Amino acid sequence: MIPGDGIGQEVVAQGLKVLSAALPQDVKLETRSYDLGARRWHATGETLPDADLESLKNHDAILLGAIGDPSVPSGVLERGLLLKLRFAFDHYVNLRPSKLFPNTPTPLAGRPDIDFVVVREGTEGPYTGNGGSLRTGTPAEVATEVSVNTAYGVERVVRDAYERADARPRKKLTLVHKNNVLVHAGHLWKNIFDRVGQEYPEVTTDYLHVDAATIFFVTQPERFDVIVTDNLFGDILTDLAAAVTGGIGLAASGNINPSGAFPSMFEPVHGSAPDIAGTGKADPTATVLSVALLLQHLGYEAEAARIETSVAQDLAERAGDTPRTTDEIGDALAARVSG
Amino acid sequence: MIPGDGIGQEVVAQGLKVLSAALPQDVKLETRSYDLGARRWHATGETLPDADLESLKNHDAILLGAIGDPSVPSGVLERGLLLKLRFAFDHYVNLRPSKLFPNTPTPLAGRPDIDFVVVREGTEGPYTGNGGSLRTGTPAEVATEVSVNTAYGVERVVRDAYERADARPRKKLTLVHKNNVLVHAGHLWKNIFDRVGQEYPEVTTDYLHVDAATIFFVTQPERFDVIVTDNLFGDILTDLAAAVTGGIGLAASGNINPSGAFPSMFEPVHGSAPDIAGTGKADPTATVLSVALLLQHLGYEAEAARIETSVAQDLAERAGDTPRTTDEIGDALAARVSG
Ligand SMILES: CC(C)[C@H](C(=O)O)[C@@H](O)C(=O)O
Ligand SMILES: CC(C)[C@H](C(=O)O)[C@@H](O)C(=O)O
Repeated sequence: MIPGDGIGQEVVAQGLKVLSAALPQDVKLETRSYDLGARRWHATGETLPDADLESLKNHDAILLGAIGDPSVPSGVLERGLLLKLRFAFDHYVNLRPSKLFPNTPTPLAGRPDIDFVVVREGTEGPYTGNGGSLRTGTPAEVATEVSVNTAYGVERVVRDAYERADARPRKKLTLVHKNNVLVHAGHLWKNIFDRVGQEYPEVTTDYLHVDAATIFFVTQPERFDVIVTDNLFGDILTDLAAAVTGGIGLAASGNINPSGAFPSMFEPVHGSAPDIAGTGKADPTATVLSVALLLQHLGYEAEAARIETSVAQDLAERAGDTPRTTDEIGDALAARVSG
Repeated sequence: MIPGDGIGQEVVAQGLKVLSAALPQDVKLETRSYDLGARRWHATGETLPDADLESLKNHDAILLGAIGDPSVPSGVLERGLLLKLRFAFDHYVNLRPSKLFPNTPTPLAGRPDIDFVVVREGTEGPYTGNGGSLRTGTPAEVATEVSVNTAYGVERVVRDAYERADARPRKKLTLVHKNNVLVHAGHLWKNIFDRVGQEYPEVTTDYLHVDAATIFFVTQPERFDVIVTDNLFGDILTDLAAAVTGGIGLAASGNINPSGAFPSMFEPVHGSAPDIAGTGKADPTATVLSVALLLQHLGYEAEAARIETSVAQDLAERAGDTPRTTDEIGDALAARVSG
């Protein structure tokens, strides 16, 4: 566990509670909590020391709360800890399901039927940290950010997305990019998408520019089944997806290394929300759903499904306006899962 | 006029109709139509020859319909014509107002009060065409896209956005970027945003990551007044903004060179929509509103306001479901404007 900053601590505690409740009796759960994030950085200047990184490799999976705090310069913890983990452990599949559960609020009129999953590339694109700044802080400054895309990196994530689409009833895969402007990266993605598609004759494919995709997210989200896209477009689209499916309090994600060479990492899509940290207002549901993804990844399909069903029931049956604390929601979910 | 492709022809014709109706009697309107786009490219292989570019410089303003056709490889017309114009004429302010008019459909429940303007940088970022591909088409391909950001380019657009915010009643300016990941470009933008802000003490400022901004676009769009952002984020956000304010049939834009050194260019945000080209189904309202921006830019404030009012009335009074043709909408608007 890397609880991290702000509400990260609180939601990870609930995730662990539900994880314990879900696991079969004969499975022994061993956890270790890593003190990483703003506190550690302020105390020692470290974001993710080699010793921690090495030690993390020994776990079956990582549950992360949230990283980031206003007291730390923007980018330090994001690049030095969260993204460092995603890159070091080669989490090339950043999996983000979006489902509008019954009785959850959506800003969309008419409550469309939303159930899609975004396969966001996790180790390339503008997230590589490539780029720099010349004459920083002067009127002659030039700052660059380089999006790096490789056939190797694109093909493996595109293939993963086809596999997922092929395994779903609707078997539909949409590539989102911006190949009319980002022609080099865009053509690489599109060519590989088309070529790999020949191996999946049952999967219907579709291409959308990222700007057009945002339109469909709010006007016709039911059209999507599986979406594959680059790291940055995936970042933007999955926050929007979360917004239309009940908010980021419900959005789960998995940073997956399908080869198993390194542990995969599961985390809510939301941030550390320092404004509500410690108030008991944080909704741990996104973390609990991330625990379901974790179990699924480790082969505990039935346990993962039980968590998902419990969340759906909890949301369906919750009384309209009565606010519950982080702890109460965690308890309610754990009770449903074990009982 | 550059009518361009698909519905571009049809909507520009209506824009011209309304422009003629709006102009004072003593203003002589001289127009020239440039044959640029898919037809020209197929016929001659040209996208924007130097002679056309030179000639375009002599006009006070350009009205563009839409560029892009499925028969032309993706990127050829976008980069070779549309973006070439924006870059050659240094259109560094890409102005995109978003307003939810009465009686227009929105996918958002509760019809929030939306009235903001996005100032999208138009000449830098990932749109510069910087980047390339190595070992193209092989399993060892690497493709890059470079986002180029300069203090020169960022400061002028940020300043323009402050001016616009300062002139509006709410005086609120939000910077949208992703400075926790794109740290070099992000810090350049943020530093300049903060520094220039000291010259506008009346303007309230705010910063949002682009992913979080998409959430607020659908959950709390009324919080925005003026937004300033980079070329790519602006592209994505303004399509989403259009979607929540009645659709891209209504979204206008101006590619503005505030210095006046080159003509500014006005165009609907929508594309060429080849699927409905020639059917009379295209809504010319976005083009008509772009004509209002054009008039405003040239100093015809009253005429621009009359067009905006006419559009608002037309939308408010239109009969629910009766579809009107492109021509009928243009006629109705021209009649309101002149009468
Ligand atoms: C915190 C930030 C670095 C991260 C990202 O951009 O990937 C977050 O927005 C996310 O989506 O997980
Ligand atoms: C057609 C395309 C090049 C263009 C852009 O990306 O700027 C369009 O999407 C727009 O928003 O004007």
